Amino acid sequence: MSEIFRNIPKIQYEGPDSYNPYAFKFYDAERIIMGKPMKEHLRFAMAWWHNLCNAGSDMFGASTGDKSFGQETGTMEHARAKVDAGFEFMDKLGIDYFCFHDADIAPKADTIEETNRRLDEITDYIKEKMEKYNKKLLWGTANLFNEPLYMNGAGSSNSVDVFCHAAAQVKKALDITVKLGGSGYVFWGGREGYETLWNTDMQFEQENIAKLMHMAVDYGRKIGFKGDFYIEPKAKEPMKHQYDFDVATSIGFLRQYGLDKDFKINVEANHATLAGHTFQHELRVAAINRMLGSIDANQGDLLLGWDTDEFPYNVYETTACMYDVLTAGGLKNGGLNFDAKTRRPSYTHEDMFLAFILGMDSFALGLINAARIIEDGRLEEFIRERYSSFETELGKRIRDGKVTLEELAEYCEKEGKPALPGSGRQEYLLSILNQLIIKG
Amino acid sequence: MSEIFRNIPKIQYEGPDSYNPYAFKFYDAERIIMGKPMKEHLRFAMAWWHNLCNAGSDMFGASTGDKSFGQETGTMEHARAKVDAGFEFMDKLGIDYFCFHDADIAPKADTIEETNRRLDEITDYIKEKMEKYNKKLLWGTANLFNEPLYMNGAGSSNSVDVFCHAAAQVKKALDITVKLGGSGYVFWGGREGYETLWNTDMQFEQENIAKLMHMAVDYGRKIGFKGDFYIEPKAKEPMKHQYDFDVATSIGFLRQYGLDKDFKINVEANHATLAGHTFQHELRVAAINRMLGSIDANQGDLLLGWDTDEFPYNVYETTACMYDVLTAGGLKNGGLNFDAKTRRPSYTHEDMFLAFILGMDSFALGLINAARIIEDGRLEEFIRERYSSFETELGKRIRDGKVTLEELAEYCEKEGKPALPGSGRQEYLLSILNQLIIKG
Amino acid sequence: MSEIFRNIPKIQYEGPDSYNPYAFKFYDAERIIMGKPMKEHLRFAMAWWHNLCNAGSDMFGASTGDKSFGQETGTMEHARAKVDAGFEFMDKLGIDYFCFHDADIAPKADTIEETNRRLDEITDYIKEKMEKYNKKLLWGTANLFNEPLYMNGAGSSNSVDVFCHAAAQVKKALDITVKLGGSGYVFWGGREGYETLWNTDMQFEQENIAKLMHMAVDYGRKIGFKGDFYIEPKAKEPMKHQYDFDVATSIGFLRQYGLDKDFKINVEANHATLAGHTFQHELRVAAINRMLGSIDANQGDLLLGWDTDEFPYNVYETTACMYDVLTAGGLKNGGLNFDAKTRRPSYTHEDMFLAFILGMDSFALGLINAARIIEDGRLEEFIRERYSSFETELGKRIRDGKVTLEELAEYCEKEGKPALPGSGRQEYLLSILNQLIIKG
Amino acid sequence: MSEIFRNIPKIQYEGPDSYNPYAFKFYDAERIIMGKPMKEHLRFAMAWWHNLCNAGSDMFGASTGDKSFGQETGTMEHARAKVDAGFEFMDKLGIDYFCFHDADIAPKADTIEETNRRLDEITDYIKEKMEKYNKKLLWGTANLFNEPLYMNGAGSSNSVDVFCHAAAQVKKALDITVKLGGSGYVFWGGREGYETLWNTDMQFEQENIAKLMHMAVDYGRKIGFKGDFYIEPKAKEPMKHQYDFDVATSIGFLRQYGLDKDFKINVEANHATLAGHTFQHELRVAAINRMLGSIDANQGDLLLGWDTDEFPYNVYETTACMYDVLTAGGLKNGGLNFDAKTRRPSYTHEDMFLAFILGMDSFALGLINAARIIEDGRLEEFIRERYSSFETELGKRIRDGKVTLEELAEYCEKEGKPALPGSGRQEYLLSILNQLIIKG
Repeated sequence: MSEIFRNIPKIQYEGPDSYNPYAFKFYDAERIIMGKPMKEHLRFAMAWWHNLCNAGSDMFGASTGDKSFGQETGTMEHARAKVDAGFEFMDKLGIDYFCFHDADIAPKADTIEETNRRLDEITDYIKEKMEKYNKKLLWGTANLFNEPLYMNGAGSSNSVDVFCHAAAQVKKALDITVKLGGSGYVFWGGREGYETLWNTDMQFEQENIAKLMHMAVDYGRKIGFKGDFYIEPKAKEPMKHQYDFDVATSIGFLRQYGLDKDFKINVEANHATLAGHTFQHELRVAAINRMLGSIDANQGDLLLGWDTDEFPYNVYETTACMYDVLTAGGLKNGGLNFDAKTRRPSYTHEDMFLAFILGMDSFALGLINAARIIEDGRLEEFIRERYSSFETELGKRIRDGKVTLEELAEYCEKEGKPALPGSGRQEYLLSILNQLIIKG
Repeated sequence: MSEIFRNIPKIQYEGPDSYNPYAFKFYDAERIIMGKPMKEHLRFAMAWWHNLCNAGSDMFGASTGDKSFGQETGTMEHARAKVDAGFEFMDKLGIDYFCFHDADIAPKADTIEETNRRLDEITDYIKEKMEKYNKKLLWGTANLFNEPLYMNGAGSSNSVDVFCHAAAQVKKALDITVKLGGSGYVFWGGREGYETLWNTDMQFEQENIAKLMHMAVDYGRKIGFKGDFYIEPKAKEPMKHQYDFDVATSIGFLRQYGLDKDFKINVEANHATLAGHTFQHELRVAAINRMLGSIDANQGDLLLGWDTDEFPYNVYETTACMYDVLTAGGLKNGGLNFDAKTRRPSYTHEDMFLAFILGMDSFALGLINAARIIEDGRLEEFIRERYSSFETELGKRIRDGKVTLEELAEYCEKEGKPALPGSGRQEYLLSILNQLIIKG
Repeated sequence: MSEIFRNIPKIQYEGPDSYNPYAFKFYDAERIIMGKPMKEHLRFAMAWWHNLCNAGSDMFGASTGDKSFGQETGTMEHARAKVDAGFEFMDKLGIDYFCFHDADIAPKADTIEETNRRLDEITDYIKEKMEKYNKKLLWGTANLFNEPLYMNGAGSSNSVDVFCHAAAQVKKALDITVKLGGSGYVFWGGREGYETLWNTDMQFEQENIAKLMHMAVDYGRKIGFKGDFYIEPKAKEPMKHQYDFDVATSIGFLRQYGLDKDFKINVEANHATLAGHTFQHELRVAAINRMLGSIDANQGDLLLGWDTDEFPYNVYETTACMYDVLTAGGLKNGGLNFDAKTRRPSYTHEDMFLAFILGMDSFALGLINAARIIEDGRLEEFIRERYSSFETELGKRIRDGKVTLEELAEYCEKEGKPALPGSGRQEYLLSILNQLIIKG
Repeated sequence: MSEIFRNIPKIQYEGPDSYNPYAFKFYDAERIIMGKPMKEHLRFAMAWWHNLCNAGSDMFGASTGDKSFGQETGTMEHARAKVDAGFEFMDKLGIDYFCFHDADIAPKADTIEETNRRLDEITDYIKEKMEKYNKKLLWGTANLFNEPLYMNGAGSSNSVDVFCHAAAQVKKALDITVKLGGSGYVFWGGREGYETLWNTDMQFEQENIAKLMHMAVDYGRKIGFKGDFYIEPKAKEPMKHQYDFDVATSIGFLRQYGLDKDFKINVEANHATLAGHTFQHELRVAAINRMLGSIDANQGDLLLGWDTDEFPYNVYETTACMYDVLTAGGLKNGGLNFDAKTRRPSYTHEDMFLAFILGMDSFALGLINAARIIEDGRLEEFIRERYSSFETELGKRIRDGKVTLEELAEYCEKEGKPALPGSGRQEYLLSILNQLIIKG
């Protein structure tokens, strides 16, 4: 197997003043930030689908790029070529992890036996490469949304046979995830929702999704999967409504059906904004519920109402993300998976690398700046001070649930009208942020 | 006390051909629909704040209307005049219920004692009127969002004194709700959220809100409140983010903190769309969780990003609403509260009546049409048929959680690729809807 | 050539009580409304692309339907089968018009000569069918957005060769539009916009688009095209921003570049809402500028941020549309083109017919109700009265531009503070609408 | 008159490492950037309404702050105190310009004569202060949206008397703008739009707005106003739809009614995003039409659907803004007016200063970074190269309008299928941006 990206060198860190487009300006893998090398904080992963499969088509246009890597698409030769390309790509960029759907790594066959055989074959090949290049599987998943039979959902399908087909696919996806030592397994419910309530039994559908997840947990644990299961929330698109709307909804679902011990959340930046939340909000909700699992690192366009899956460049966002990751104690089994695609006119192989450099440098900047915020300490000091009135005895008794309305009403009558609760100082805090992040 | 709306007669049902603006065309209180009079299905309520207080101001303009009812605003005389106006209004429209915040019915005083005294005085007067006019309180609530001291929240405030003030207000609001025989008590957390995460301890704030609600339940039950507590979800506005984002989030919160036995949801149409959901979606989520409590009956404008609180006129929406209410078994303690205001240029007293006629007729149409859909049966038959593959033995075992991935994978290999799950027939179902709802 | 939709009968009008899914309930082609048969008001057209090409794929899933019509897709045999299917379809539904892009009717070849030869061949066949079935071409257009070479635009491309290719395509599309007697020619600038301003010369791009349009007008008039050119505005999608953002922007562009004598606007309902406007707003803006040309009759989902192109079912919308069409004096060269696709799970051939029945019945209802509003007269009388103060002498002098600020200031000082301008009575007017439209 | 902001010192530049909240970290007024001092590039202005009048009320809550400055609000004493506060504020921050509505500077009286007298009195006082402090009026305007009489619009009102009242107000506002040497006069049409099309004559309303503007131009020029008139576009809020929707629409309107010689555009960041555009987009549209007049410098929240008028902190946005300002040749008569308010919980006088420091530093950073981008040259070189194919002879003939479709079609047949137009390299360009803007 010969080199695929021949005109692309190994990407090195050259520092903030480099004019070399094929160099990192900020991502310096071994640089120690708050006691750990950058690469351990960030645990970057390559998404098979966007990087090795997607070639730029959209609803109004054909593919602009070429991801054949010299083979006929849809063949096992092509599947192997993608493995070759993927590992060369990871190697050149210094990325340690990857993620895939079953359907990304081998073409589906007419029978499930033959599809599974292909998956066995290709994962043998991937495994070999993993050892050679020292790469790891961040998470695997089953694509339960592309095929026509999933048009009404997989776990939520109205067809019992389709439900079984989904179950069979999840089984195999778990098998190969375990085979490759994956530390996570994701459910993204792209068709688990509805197009119209006028033909939908919502309760039936949600219960069935939970059944499928329970079976997956049982089977996964049985075959030795020690990692985390994840739900990846998304509010809508492709469906009118998806049940895993956002982090809060997904956590509520997991708790309702007794799945919260085995599942965490895979938070995607663009999915956050499609649900009307900031990325940081979704991370925070997951974090305070001890359910922050992994991250799909991309960026949306808030003026566009669909999943644009852009490579992250907004350092305000990456800083907020890494701040919440650091304060939550880091990602354990999870990582930062670039669920991102180059813009359709960025169609060349060079753009694949330039885009990852953008994403990796943006998250490196986010990490550097998040650490700087923590070390600076002004923001956290402000918050501590802000809530300090609850450090009083009364405050503690309220926090401990040891008071009644009557007691508090009495206190209130005695004390009279309270003072205002103190300025939130938002503009000042944002000034500090800019001072710490922006070049003057 | 003399008549206030002198040129407005008692509003009568005159039928669909009437040209009289001051008559119902569709709301016929005693007409039997599916075994009950319209008025029992609909349980309309007048919202004190919009109808008797709000006079049309917005962020860019002063009040256009006059809600002084002949008295100086901010006085107890004015408070009494509003009672007079309110009961005359309900009487003329044949509305049986009303809803209020503490701050709507009496002006706040400098001390909480004096404020409470005023509340006692005015609720004496309201009680008298209730008996005279045979009207009922649907629900009461405390306004924990208007005063400056609540700028950072009430239950979620960073100030322990503000928390206590909120507790005192809730106590009194519960007292008067019970005094007036209210069947519900609402928490709308207009300031329970944040402006920026950079100054916010989200976990602290959410826990404290739960504490306040627990105290309210304990106190309410102690003083004999038998009705339902409600959370009224809203995603944002006035805050950047509000914790009770939508129905799913609120139910998750109630369950997490053990409040789900005492609380149900008060669903508002306009809040649904601000959260990115349809009104029917929010009703459905509440219904399948047995948490559909009450409804704030209004309408938003999906091209505008704020709470427009319009009087409902879209009969597709009112039909969907009443369909979900009917199939959920009706509203028990709840009702349809018009949390709606006339448009700013609809500034006259006549417009107050014209707006309620619009709202009541629109919901009457919704009820008539929802019943027609149920009686027609084609939609429900379609849904039944759609999920019928789960009536097989395998389907039942899946539903009962008695199968494994392995077993389903085996079944799948044996059966081969499943057939497509059947058309969703959305366009056909919408044709049926139009056939049943629209005049040809 | 044998029948393709064998189990679908000719669709007949059976009236509002019919339970036959394959019958019109409201569209009665020959029924006279305001002096003209329904079919002349409505001038329905079938869109080749959605009806005969699109099979339900979306960004996350493969095609669910089958539009091969028994032939291998991408061949001229398939192109002919689509013609067969299309004319049978129009015939069975009683639709008189169709619309197409060049790329819809014949597969592109490697050379432009061969592509053009195929277009000649297929339009010969279409012409034959048109005569046989008595069908007409509403408008033609060139697809300047699908092919990779148009990734940066067609008229707005940075590549002079791509610009020339676009010009060649427009020339041929005009040739075949004239050959088939089309009464319109459309420019939809799906790639005429930008992905990021950081790589874009906006002025250059807009000027070049105007150049291309001028050449099209010159050539079209030269070869005898007597119909209207149309711009079809769309705000975004696929591009981040499209230059023909909305009707007002497009009219401004046409006037700036001297194209307003030859061009009118093709207003699409779903594009209106993507730009933040109601459908009626866009129609009104076009109408008051005498630029209402034709209509793409579909419906969007205001909670979804992309072009859903749904079949129209909301009769409030179709009524508002037909009201503005009727008051603008009707569509001359234009018509109602169903730029709409069945939902992805509505994947059968039956759904194609059911969807058109929904759309045609919904617009029939819109027409019936718009005429009823006009005949009722209350709304129009209200508007007339509302602006009547400008019928005074002073009012007329203002309207004629014959007064100065000084004179009006003087008048104002003399007259004192003006009275309020009268209630807008929005709620009352909406009550009238419901009374006229909805079944009680 | 004694010092009002006693605990606030004169704000000095202390550089990026200062920990002093009351110091500029980046705004260094006399620092030369591309040949001019920062302060001449930026021409900061204080908005009277937000800074001196608004005290934090919103639709759900009362004012949290105190802008009485020791006087009873609504009196002329208060009006004078605001002048004192405003000039002390500008002086301490080193801001050279201010902007006002008539209603901001003096309370309205019952008669227009008395209101005008108050305006004369207060502008005498302002003039005195301007000389003393060496401050200038950036622009003036009339508040034609707050008073109830403008509920249906001012220029677009249905009432001829209201139209005259608006004319009288505009006359006086022009008088005082000229008296104070203002270099601009703004029309913001907050009520020039509609709530529902069902009661609106859109053409009538738009024509009347144009009449009012023409009178204003005639009168302004007559009394010696040499500056620019501006339209400030806003899409919606308070009205459902405002006619000056965005920059493109406003320019189209100005050209249609022959007002484009006297008017330019005042672009507001938050209004841009409410119209679905980026701030940079609106600036660019104005710039390429030679209509970029002035800027309302604030920031919106793209997840919130209303005008939040936040102080700008996003340096990506301020950089894009200043890049477009620099490449357009700078603001001539215009400036950067902080049409921004502190968040409601930032209620203290200190927050007023902290917010301006944030805004001024953010725009200083924007200027520094925009200049750095220009000096770096990589982005502009990329754009030049990108369009270079039009530098050929054929390209030039196309640009000059000297070719026909036939000629280009021939060229195309001869040349064959064009090559792809080259990658847009968006990810690479964004990497350069981050390299130039962000601290590593």
